[in-house]
Amino acid sequence: MGFHHKLENAWRSTASMLCVGLDPDPTRMPAPLRGAPDAIAQFCIAIIDATAATACAFKPQIAYFASQGAEAQLEQVCAHIRDAHPGHVLILDAKRGDIGPTAEHYAREAFVRYGADAVTVNPYLGTDSVEPFLRHEGKGTIILCRTSNRGGDDFQSLMVDGQPLYTHVAHRVAAEWSRMGECALVVGATYPAEVGVVRDIVGDLPLLVPGVGAQGGEVDATVRAGRRTDGWGLIINSSRAILYAGDGEDFAQQAATVAAATRDEIRAVPPG
Amino acid sequence: MGFHHKLENAWRSTASMLCVGLDPDPTRMPAPLRGAPDAIAQFCIAIIDATAATACAFKPQIAYFASQGAEAQLEQVCAHIRDAHPGHVLILDAKRGDIGPTAEHYAREAFVRYGADAVTVNPYLGTDSVEPFLRHEGKGTIILCRTSNRGGDDFQSLMVDGQPLYTHVAHRVAAEWSRMGECALVVGATYPAEVGVVRDIVGDLPLLVPGVGAQGGEVDATVRAGRRTDGWGLIINSSRAILYAGDGEDFAQQAATVAAATRDEIRAVPPG
Repeated sequence: MGFHHKLENAWRSTASMLCVGLDPDPTRMPAPLRGAPDAIAQFCIAIIDATAATACAFKPQIAYFASQGAEAQLEQVCAHIRDAHPGHVLILDAKRGDIGPTAEHYAREAFVRYGADAVTVNPYLGTDSVEPFLRHEGKGTIILCRTSNRGGDDFQSLMVDGQPLYTHVAHRVAAEWSRMGECALVVGATYPAEVGVVRDIVGDLPLLVPGVGAQGGEVDATVRAGRRTDGWGLIINSSRAILYAGDGEDFAQQAATVAAATRDEIRAVPPG
Repeated sequence: MGFHHKLENAWRSTASMLCVGLDPDPTRMPAPLRGAPDAIAQFCIAIIDATAATACAFKPQIAYFASQGAEAQLEQVCAHIRDAHPGHVLILDAKRGDIGPTAEHYAREAFVRYGADAVTVNPYLGTDSVEPFLRHEGKGTIILCRTSNRGGDDFQSLMVDGQPLYTHVAHRVAAEWSRMGECALVVGATYPAEVGVVRDIVGDLPLLVPGVGAQGGEVDATVRAGRRTDGWGLIINSSRAILYAGDGEDFAQQAATVAAATRDEIRAVPPG
C-alpha cells in the first residue's frame, strides 16, 4: 500500500488529521526519564503509544536525534511506529535537498534505513534533486512550499510573473512532480490564507501543515482553508504543545489529553 | 581562528584552492578495502592523507554516511581531519535548512558533533532559518545560491524584479547574513558566467564551487569568473574524479595524482 492510500486509510480509521511531531529536546525531557541512556527513544515511544488513538501520523524530526548522536534511537522509534502502529503514517522530517546521486542516498536514509512512508524535501535545487525520492515506489515526497516561520517570506513570497514563488513550487508539484511519484506539500498554519491558495493549485494532494500549537497557527482558519471537499486532505502537525504538555510521571497522559483536544478542535470545524 | 581566517591561511599555505569532496559510494570502494567493517573511514582517511598536500579543504558529504548508518565513521573522518591536518578547512556538506529551534540542532550536529569549520545551508526558509548557524562564532555558513545540477534552473533562475532568484539570495547574503556571521556561497562550476555574477554581488566572500571533474565544469572559465583580484577566493570542489581515480592497491596514490593535476590546472589560469 502506497503513501497516499495509507494516509487516506489512517485519516478515516483514526477519525483524525492530527500528526504528532517528535522533536525530543534534551533540555525538556520529563523528570522520570532524565539521565536514562535511551531517554529519547523511551520518551518518543511513550508519546507515540499515548497519542496513537488520536493521531493519523507521527513525524520524527531528525535534527533532534542528529545533534545528540542518537540515530540508533531514531531507528528504534521508527521501528516501533511501524511494528506497534502499522496503520499510522511515518513521516521523517528531514528537509533534505541535494543533487541527484547524493539525493538518492538521502532517499535511502529516509525510506530504507528508517523505513519512513514519506520524507520532507526542499525544492530549491529543482526537479532532478527531487526525482530520486519520487522514484521510490509507494513512498511519499513532501515538498516544502510555504513554511510556517516568519523568514518564510524572505524568498518564498518574492513575486515571479505576478505570483509569489511558493505558488510556482505548488504548480510544479501539481503539474510535474506528482506525475513522477506520490507527493504532498508543506504549508504553514501560520498563513491560513496561503493554505487555501495552495489547496486551489494542487487539487486533492495532501498538505502537511505545521505551526499549530506552540507556533500559534489557528486551527479553525487552517482547516477551513485547506481541507478538501470530502473533509480530509490535511496532516496537521503539532509537536511541542503535545510533547511538553507535562513533565512529571504523567507526561504521556498529559500529551494524550492535549492531542485529543487538538484532534477534537480539528474535527469540530463545521463544514463549509 | 574563525572560518574566513583559517581559509585564507589554508589557501596560501597549500598554494591551492582545491577542495576534496568525500562522497564514499559503497559500490565504488577500492578492492583492498571491500568488506572491511570500517571501509568508509579507511577509504576517506587514505584519500585525505594522500591529497592534503594539494588541497586547502575537505568536504565530507553526510548523505553517503547517513544512508549507510555510518555516523561513527563520519565522526572518525572529521576527527582525523582536525587532528592530522589542523590547518585544512573542514566543510560538512549537509545542505540543511529548517526553522529556528530545529536549525539550532542542525548547527550543533555540524559544528559540535562533527567539529566542522563550516556547513552548507539551504536558503529557501529565509533569515531566521540561517541565523542559528550564523550565531556560532568563528564557524562558517555556506549558502546554496546557484547549484551545479541542471534542475538548478527550475527555481533559482526564475526572474524576480528583472533578476534571477539566485542573485536575490546573493544580495541577501552580502547585505545581511554576512553581517550576522561568517558566510560563503555555493555556485556551480557548470555555470561559470553565473560564478562571475555572484562574485560581483558578494565582494570578497568565499565561493564554494562544485561541479568540476565528473560533473564537467570548466576550471579555466570558473577561475577567471570567480577569483578575487588577489587571486584567491574560491573553494573548488572535486569529488568523484579524485576519489575514484583508481580502485586497486594504489587508489590513494592515483587520487593524489588527480588532485595535484587539478590543483595545478587551477593555479595555471593566467591572471586577468
